[in-house]
Amino acid sequence: MARTLYVTEPLLPNLTELQELLEQIWQTKILTNGGPLHQKLERELQKRVGVPTVKLFNNGTIALIVALKVVDLPLGSEVITTPLTFAATAHAISWNGLMPIFVDVSPGTLTIDPASVERAITERTSAILAVHVYGTVCDVEALKCIADRHNLRLIYDAAHAFGVTVNGESIAAFGDVSVFSFHATKLFNTLEGGLIATPRNDDGEAIENLRNFGIKNEEEVVCVGINGKLNEVQAAVGLLNLPRVDGERERRALLRAKYDEMMGLLPGIALQKKQPGVVNSEQYYRIVVDAEVFGRSRNDLYDALKDRGIFARKYFHPICTDFVPYKGWPIYTTRSSPYVDIVKTQVLCLPFHSGVTDEDVAEIRDVFWTGRSV
Amino acid sequence: MARTLYVTEPLLPNLTELQELLEQIWQTKILTNGGPLHQKLERELQKRVGVPTVKLFNNGTIALIVALKVVDLPLGSEVITTPLTFAATAHAISWNGLMPIFVDVSPGTLTIDPASVERAITERTSAILAVHVYGTVCDVEALKCIADRHNLRLIYDAAHAFGVTVNGESIAAFGDVSVFSFHATKLFNTLEGGLIATPRNDDGEAIENLRNFGIKNEEEVVCVGINGKLNEVQAAVGLLNLPRVDGERERRALLRAKYDEMMGLLPGIALQKKQPGVVNSEQYYRIVVDAEVFGRSRNDLYDALKDRGIFARKYFHPICTDFVPYKGWPIYTTRSSPYVDIVKTQVLCLPFHSGVTDEDVAEIRDVFWTGRSV
Repeated sequence: MARTLYVTEPLLPNLTELQELLEQIWQTKILTNGGPLHQKLERELQKRVGVPTVKLFNNGTIALIVALKVVDLPLGSEVITTPLTFAATAHAISWNGLMPIFVDVSPGTLTIDPASVERAITERTSAILAVHVYGTVCDVEALKCIADRHNLRLIYDAAHAFGVTVNGESIAAFGDVSVFSFHATKLFNTLEGGLIATPRNDDGEAIENLRNFGIKNEEEVVCVGINGKLNEVQAAVGLLNLPRVDGERERRALLRAKYDEMMGLLPGIALQKKQPGVVNSEQYYRIVVDAEVFGRSRNDLYDALKDRGIFARKYFHPICTDFVPYKGWPIYTTRSSPYVDIVKTQVLCLPFHSGVTDEDVAEIRDVFWTGRSV
Repeated sequence: MARTLYVTEPLLPNLTELQELLEQIWQTKILTNGGPLHQKLERELQKRVGVPTVKLFNNGTIALIVALKVVDLPLGSEVITTPLTFAATAHAISWNGLMPIFVDVSPGTLTIDPASVERAITERTSAILAVHVYGTVCDVEALKCIADRHNLRLIYDAAHAFGVTVNGESIAAFGDVSVFSFHATKLFNTLEGGLIATPRNDDGEAIENLRNFGIKNEEEVVCVGINGKLNEVQAAVGLLNLPRVDGERERRALLRAKYDEMMGLLPGIALQKKQPGVVNSEQYYRIVVDAEVFGRSRNDLYDALKDRGIFARKYFHPICTDFVPYKGWPIYTTRSSPYVDIVKTQVLCLPFHSGVTDEDVAEIRDVFWTGRSV
């Protein structure tokens, strides 16, 4: 192997095109604070995400922290979430002075298990923060029922789910508020970046205020805001990357088909199931490795791939309840023991971007099929 | 007036030079997460700021929020600060679950008044967050004495003070931790950006962890971190702007001399006094207008300048205790009433950058000297 292969590889705009936008920025000398390119990208994203309110942020974490502020939860109240997620999900709850409560995931989807959510609800619960992990859509109907019945706010961490639709409806149409990530590792990136999206028209001003220190105008600061501003150069990168998202998604869908074909026959390897009516974000290709059935463990496969310069990711392992700040915290479940504690040792994300060649796929196939008859 | 003039105008790197660095980034495909340019800029800044630990951030606010985390204060404890500052100072305290306590400023420097600080200390006080406002150095000796005597942590908001030295010593050598801003409005900018600096060698790892979600390595998340990462393109802008800071500072120093000469003779206009042994950041040119003595109010001058397309700033007015979240909160003072409530109606920042021409200065002179004999 001459080269190394990573799970993600960023879309990058053509540098000549970027230079033109930089010249515009250099001319206006507006570098940030909601400049013209920022406004333009927000408009384009509004059309694409397809909900009334979308607001850009400097990264997904700050967006998630602000999203939790937008739904206005009582200080110290409990927010039910999944431990099978990136650290930022739990941390965003903590940064708001709220208490993350972890519950189990559903074996089929690896998203938060509605029955386990119900089990964790107390009089202190104020919200559910669910994650469309790997772009797999949560059980949005069940979660809505639970939220409505218990008068909870419903927030979606949609960091992996940019572009997902459910029966033609935007993923951001569900819940009170959704947050996307535009980090370099995401299919659509603004180097770093994030987005808050809500299905309501009248959320925009509150989110804008929170994004910009609470500044309503030169004379008024109306809330404890933060600096969540995306600068103009990042907006320029976004404007040039956005038209290229669909092409990259199509190429990844083809890669997914190849992987699925190669993996589908292997006993003990569970694939991400196609959800009816759902258009996939094509953000990650994740499998679940049952070592007993497959005969080799996830870690074993990870190491074997690494030996060939292929860097898969044990994503997400460790999970939140393995992290120092939440170590040993209970995971509420309807099972005898949390399924998430098993599946965290089994999940693996494979290189998934248009830079993965047929030779790479063959190489990966080789690792998975070693010692097996074709 | 054909053009408009603002208080600040950003330093912008040469686009051809920037293009070269962008090509490097596009080649490595490392867009963020502490890439090579980020590392290089951090090294350069370490030399320039001249303290052992410096860590870059995506903006000054996130840096300040993290700085307060670094000094590890008890949740709910009180942090004494000045209301004559940007909203982010107070908000950073609030975001940490701490209580901002506002005290008066000293008439000479407009920085936090040490005697008023002493008056505000209770058993709940854990820290002082002082601001080198307009780049004017706080009474660092008095504040150190107070902090030591009462076992308080001492944090400096040095957003305006990049490049300041006191008797040859870096401004970041004082207190437990200092935070700089590299926002577009600052003399040295990375579009948006910030820096935490500390006089200790062993703070680096804790700050890096807090900056990156608490991730220590692939297997460990050790604290409730945030996303404070500066991307590679912003680091590139910083690398190209940094060598140009001294030239811009010199040009601003000349402009300051012109302004001082023009203003110095005006009764009722108080200038920012030169502090012995201090090298100025040349971030702002601020005056204090005593309407009774001068015969015209600050607001009057602001409007008259605006009529000529010159946008001065009533900086800082409103002050934190005028903002909705802190409205009506007490301002501790040793005077009969807070001086800051008077001076907030008197402060004015004038256009201060190398784009201000002699004609602009003459125009401003005209506004100030109207109806006066030369």
